[in-house]
Amino acid sequence: METTEPEANVTRIMLAVNESSIKGYPHASISSRGAFEWTIQKIVRSNTSGFKLLFLHVQAPHEDGFEDMDRIYAFPEDFNTMKHRDQTRGLHLLEYFVTRCHEIGVACEAWIKEGDPKEVICREAKRMQPDLLVVGNRGLGPFQRVIAGTVSEFCVKHAECPVVSIKRRPGETPQDPVDD
Amino acid sequence: METTEPEANVTRIMLAVNESSIKGYPHASISSRGAFEWTIQKIVRSNTSGFKLLFLHVQAPHEDGFEDMDRIYAFPEDFNTMKHRDQTRGLHLLEYFVTRCHEIGVACEAWIKEGDPKEVICREAKRMQPDLLVVGNRGLGPFQRVIAGTVSEFCVKHAECPVVSIKRRPGETPQDPVDD
Repeated sequence: METTEPEANVTRIMLAVNESSIKGYPHASISSRGAFEWTIQKIVRSNTSGFKLLFLHVQAPHEDGFEDMDRIYAFPEDFNTMKHRDQTRGLHLLEYFVTRCHEIGVACEAWIKEGDPKEVICREAKRMQPDLLVVGNRGLGPFQRVIAGTVSEFCVKHAECPVVSIKRRPGETPQDPVDD
Repeated sequence: METTEPEANVTRIMLAVNESSIKGYPHASISSRGAFEWTIQKIVRSNTSGFKLLFLHVQAPHEDGFEDMDRIYAFPEDFNTMKHRDQTRGLHLLEYFVTRCHEIGVACEAWIKEGDPKEVICREAKRMQPDLLVVGNRGLGPFQRVIAGTVSEFCVKHAECPVVSIKRRPGETPQDPVDD
């Protein structure tokens, strides 16, 4: 990839992005989009050649478990189809961010990993050593956090690089705030 | 203050800075300087007109208690002198950062407040509504944290704006890691 500055000298910002839980169609979660927009508007600004964005999407192994409860699995291939579909959804998600970066003119890379999101994000941050990790955050209250858990809190505590957690704006909170 | 962009459109980054605990002379702590250098090198970069830095120094009411143990206070003015000296130390500290910003060409503001640092930082962040709050962090282990407490952890948890905590680099840790 061509950049106007040597890559060693750009600020590498890793963004952990995930799909929305609201609709069936694969699109970015509200908090992922918020984290991305914040990064572009507040940090990258007009200095597009000074930054490179690294998009990581982690797919939980059984993320679609509930949707798949009515299905019958009879052949090994049934599982391959499911995995293939997950992969496609993940690619659609990353395509959204890569396309936005291309429009804005900021260099990027995007990849998918499978596993427990919070642990994989920290492991990948350790491997990639970004200058900053940006994670979205639903801005849940303490009670909701106990139920829903938060990936961002875990990353803030455990990632080895600087981490900033971007709260969803109150006006963007869906009817069920655990949704995103 | 003149800026090349209207101020409403710059990214306002608040930095909480404190004095070093190592020597008697008022200079910035290792973690404050680390947080500042990170902000300049990784975020502001060459885009100096796109950012404004807001330096907050919080003076704990009895920060100099130990140094003052051998003194005798006989007149109300004795206390004024002490307060005046604290003020001067705080001004020296802010002067360091304001001078650096002036050399770099990035707009800034700096001010001093008295109180419990972690609470005042969060209150000032609420009042100033920066786009990002940057706090230095000694990178202490869990046991040392229990003893020493950490302002950064409190801010990450309680400040209303995005917060990034910048760990001191291992090579910069003083003999006693609780020092800074």
